[in-house]
Amino acid sequence: MNDWIESVAWNADGLVPALAQDAKSGEVLMLAWMNREALTKTAESREAVYWSRSRGKLWKKGETSGHVQRVLEIRLDCDADAVLLRVESVAGIACHTGRRRCFFNRLEGEGSEARWVETDPELADPSTFRDG
Amino acid sequence: MNDWIESVAWNADGLVPALAQDAKSGEVLMLAWMNREALTKTAESREAVYWSRSRGKLWKKGETSGHVQRVLEIRLDCDADAVLLRVESVAGIACHTGRRRCFFNRLEGEGSEARWVETDPELADPSTFRDG
Repeated sequence: MNDWIESVAWNADGLVPALAQDAKSGEVLMLAWMNREALTKTAESREAVYWSRSRGKLWKKGETSGHVQRVLEIRLDCDADAVLLRVESVAGIACHTGRRRCFFNRLEGEGSEARWVETDPELADPSTFRDG
Repeated sequence: MNDWIESVAWNADGLVPALAQDAKSGEVLMLAWMNREALTKTAESREAVYWSRSRGKLWKKGETSGHVQRVLEIRLDCDADAVLLRVESVAGIACHTGRRRCFFNRLEGEGSEARWVETDPELADPSTFRDG
């Protein structure tokens, strides 16, 4: 019985967007994608497993970096087409660039002056790991 | 010059997922989608405008419900394929079901006992508005 898995509105590629939010700070860390196997493994192991669209394979968060995400809560939205994880970000680093979160670009300025500005420092050397 | 718009990694449908997070509580309210026009209008008006995939048109948040989202900050992630809005949710209701947020289903139980459980009350009668 995996009805809870089939309750998810998987897209045409069999994927759903999954957000990771830091359970303590409330900071939105990253958006990744999951397939049925990734979500099942995440629920069973209570550690985040995503589907890497670029590599075309399951991606256990932290498998090369050690930046595991412990999953405290799994939520589904009203249309069942987005998943929210509340996590403990073990090393305090969620991004493959070595930053705390992936959303480190902020839009500043208006009109023709608008541009993305990096706001967050690198906390780890990204050459030492492949994933975030 | 709209280079900041072209910096976004629009998908094959010309869309990007956009998260709305309550700026005060930190709560993740919803995940919706934007096209170039929606993101441009959001940046110009500082109120959230999404692209409704089901209706195939621009969707000014709150246009029928009054549940406008004032946009305090717009962020882009490391791969430029996800947008994060920090918003003031004017009526404190982000979901078209009349709830504070769309992520009102929590996974409870394990293995064959796992199921989605609604955790949040309806704060408004959803029959009084079409969108969230």
